Amino acid sequence: MGIKLTSRKIDYSKWYNEIVINADLAENSAVRGCMIIKPYGYAIWERMQAELDKMFKETGHENAYFPLFVPKSLFEAEEKNAEGFAKECAVVTHYRLKNDEDKPGKLKVDPNAKLEEELVVRPTSEEVIWNTFKSWIQSYRDLPILINQWSNVVRWEMRTRLFLRTSEFLWQEGQTAHSTKEEAIEETILMNQVYANFVENYMAIPVIQGIKSASERFAGAEETYCIEALMQDGKALQAGTSHFLGQNFAKAFNVKYANTDGVLEHVWATSWGVSTRLIGALIMTHSDDNGLVLPPNLAPIQVVLVPIYKGEKQKKEIAEVANQMKKALESKNIRVKFDNRDKFKPGYKFNEYELKGVPLRIAIGPKDIENGTVEIARRDTFSKTLVDQDEVVDFISMKLDQIQSDLFQKALGFRETHITEVENFKEFKKIIDKKGGFVSAHWDGTKETEEAIKNQTKATIRCIPLESKEEQGKCVFSGNPSKQRVLFAKAY
Amino acid sequence: MGIKLTSRKIDYSKWYNEIVINADLAENSAVRGCMIIKPYGYAIWERMQAELDKMFKETGHENAYFPLFVPKSLFEAEEKNAEGFAKECAVVTHYRLKNDEDKPGKLKVDPNAKLEEELVVRPTSEEVIWNTFKSWIQSYRDLPILINQWSNVVRWEMRTRLFLRTSEFLWQEGQTAHSTKEEAIEETILMNQVYANFVENYMAIPVIQGIKSASERFAGAEETYCIEALMQDGKALQAGTSHFLGQNFAKAFNVKYANTDGVLEHVWATSWGVSTRLIGALIMTHSDDNGLVLPPNLAPIQVVLVPIYKGEKQKKEIAEVANQMKKALESKNIRVKFDNRDKFKPGYKFNEYELKGVPLRIAIGPKDIENGTVEIARRDTFSKTLVDQDEVVDFISMKLDQIQSDLFQKALGFRETHITEVENFKEFKKIIDKKGGFVSAHWDGTKETEEAIKNQTKATIRCIPLESKEEQGKCVFSGNPSKQRVLFAKAY
Repeated sequence: MGIKLTSRKIDYSKWYNEIVINADLAENSAVRGCMIIKPYGYAIWERMQAELDKMFKETGHENAYFPLFVPKSLFEAEEKNAEGFAKECAVVTHYRLKNDEDKPGKLKVDPNAKLEEELVVRPTSEEVIWNTFKSWIQSYRDLPILINQWSNVVRWEMRTRLFLRTSEFLWQEGQTAHSTKEEAIEETILMNQVYANFVENYMAIPVIQGIKSASERFAGAEETYCIEALMQDGKALQAGTSHFLGQNFAKAFNVKYANTDGVLEHVWATSWGVSTRLIGALIMTHSDDNGLVLPPNLAPIQVVLVPIYKGEKQKKEIAEVANQMKKALESKNIRVKFDNRDKFKPGYKFNEYELKGVPLRIAIGPKDIENGTVEIARRDTFSKTLVDQDEVVDFISMKLDQIQSDLFQKALGFRETHITEVENFKEFKKIIDKKGGFVSAHWDGTKETEEAIKNQTKATIRCIPLESKEEQGKCVFSGNPSKQRVLFAKAY
Repeated sequence: MGIKLTSRKIDYSKWYNEIVINADLAENSAVRGCMIIKPYGYAIWERMQAELDKMFKETGHENAYFPLFVPKSLFEAEEKNAEGFAKECAVVTHYRLKNDEDKPGKLKVDPNAKLEEELVVRPTSEEVIWNTFKSWIQSYRDLPILINQWSNVVRWEMRTRLFLRTSEFLWQEGQTAHSTKEEAIEETILMNQVYANFVENYMAIPVIQGIKSASERFAGAEETYCIEALMQDGKALQAGTSHFLGQNFAKAFNVKYANTDGVLEHVWATSWGVSTRLIGALIMTHSDDNGLVLPPNLAPIQVVLVPIYKGEKQKKEIAEVANQMKKALESKNIRVKFDNRDKFKPGYKFNEYELKGVPLRIAIGPKDIENGTVEIARRDTFSKTLVDQDEVVDFISMKLDQIQSDLFQKALGFRETHITEVENFKEFKKIIDKKGGFVSAHWDGTKETEEAIKNQTKATIRCIPLESKEEQGKCVFSGNPSKQRVLFAKAY
């Protein structure tokens, strides 16, 4: 292999792109801003889907599927949502191509096949789903409705980056309907908590739960809850959002239910989503200059067995031990690959799995066969241990847990040292410019201050943390009184 | 509930639509021809996906994801494929909406946001994928590439029916690249066999494996293998196809590999797919005038427990037994629902689960608590058995297997009595008109005969069965010599 990545210190952004390409996660396609998720990258997404899907079902949600297309008249029904997405949506106007008379063998749009009403490729599905809920909901008996959808969405982004911002991406969107405001808010908070649990326990990324300021809210929401993570370059990344939509969509689509007294009331709504963007967060939180580092709970391959041999005899002896070990590990539900490809040397394989972030590597050579040992190397720390073959299963189980926990602790340590409380705007600018990370500062609660700070520093309010304490203070920018600190940062 | 379906004998098509709606499987949406797959219908699709995905992975395939959009210039690269899909594709021409000055609050397509090149919403992904394979393939070492994709596709159909023919549908498409013709053909046949195994063993639908005639071939394929099923109304349904694409796409996209001698050759290709259409086949094969009948291997709920009680005391006693039973069944990986909803009467619940095709129903009343029994009813045969509570788990396990096998045998029996060998065209027409099913007849192999038969009878060649024996005969239409029988039928 011998691929040498750009160092994070020299060019973080280049380093990121090189990892995505060289670890075989994704690549750009012929369509502007749309990515191809390669098998190894998709396998990570499948692991994420499986765990999230289980969590959604455990909290009472069911999957369903709604159309890709939103007729323009539905799209514009909830004004704020429409306004939020109108500038970046792909629009289908025709339903047929025909031969281009001027260019033999080429096709052109058939002007006779113009749609009566244009179709927007869904950037989100509130409109389609609430238009459907209308016929699903008559009385309080029909509520709550707890739906989730796994799908692709399209938002026509101008500046795109693999995983982090693409014109088409994969995601899930929860869409729920409730009879009371309280229940809807409870659901919003619950699903934000589910996201936090998933991201912390599976992705090993510590997050801060909070509420967005009004200007950072989802278009059409009354309140947006979020989980915010911190990347190694000191920029924040919004890892998931959960929206309390109030009665906005119920009113836009006239969805009412008869309450227990028979009185008609508008339904309350939530929506929540995470996307393939999370893979970007995963890469940027744990990886190093040698390549990807994956937390064991999400790694498609948790352990790779690499044989080191000369000649057929050694190869056969080692393969026998390796295959037995593979079986023993698999019986403990550990995901193992035995890389017995002949055409590549061990050194090449070592590099490949380092680049691909496989948490543990077992090397078995002729000496190991003699001694009944193997060499086990950790991807995250590069430490190597000689282990007796009959202790491998226990050792690996233990190490996988330890790596999972160590990665989280390491990221948490970084995050904790990158939340800086500041008391004035000079300090604020200095921290944002030099140190990065979250700046915890008092804010007067106005849009004007928020915007002025953004214009001068590129930092935005990432969230008002749920756990922040009330504390009298003065706005770092305007000097006006403030009751609590909020978190600012530059963000992806 | 008390929903009474139209009888199959009176109006098969209406019966089908009523089942889809009343069993809560799917419904039409605000977008012409696009369906909403409701949670219960989607749960069946999830079961199908899980089993198929396992089979694909066991045969060495990996999942990946490719863009939704195909630039027009890529779309037209493989001429036959382009010709096949040009007439039914959704075309994105713009990437932005803006406020409509003439209609406050309304949006219109922004003429300044016209795409330089139109984008086709994928009807299939050969073009996008082969354009990508180009950079993935240099030498024989890079082959084979065995990819599968789960996704949505759009084919702008004029006459649509829920599940059977919709403008957007969900499917999987395998796309593979090989160094030799033989290997590609082997893959094509293998995946057709995988489909046959899945459809027979999980869906309990017997299929005939065969090859399509040239005019029924997939656009761009050299040979299309298929599995054909027979519905209760005597019409055939193509349940899956597997295509040997030859070097057509490799040539269209100039994809070559260096063979072991270093010589550049074009790559060989296959593609294969099944879709949500299979749910239509599932419904039409097993269901009856009382509603859906589901084979246990795919039923989201295999067993439902319905309590019959008066008053809180009985309710509590029964719930205790039911919950224990549920636990015991779940420990055997049986999918159980305990329907303890207060607001619905047992009779209502019986009807609901009958309509939804739950294979087994356990009713527990106060007498059962006294006697240590329960009543178990089969959905497919309506037979009821009184079973001792401590024998329930064994009884249910056994019955689920038996129902799975009985459904298959019943469908096979119907299929076997609906393959009719005919020797002349008068007989041919009579069978197609009156009895339906497959007609096994000699065909001279020409497109003209095939077309003439289709025009006169609406029957098409479903396939040339893989297992058909060579047999000298005369074409049922032209009288010209023929070497084997092929299967004709009217089809969905």
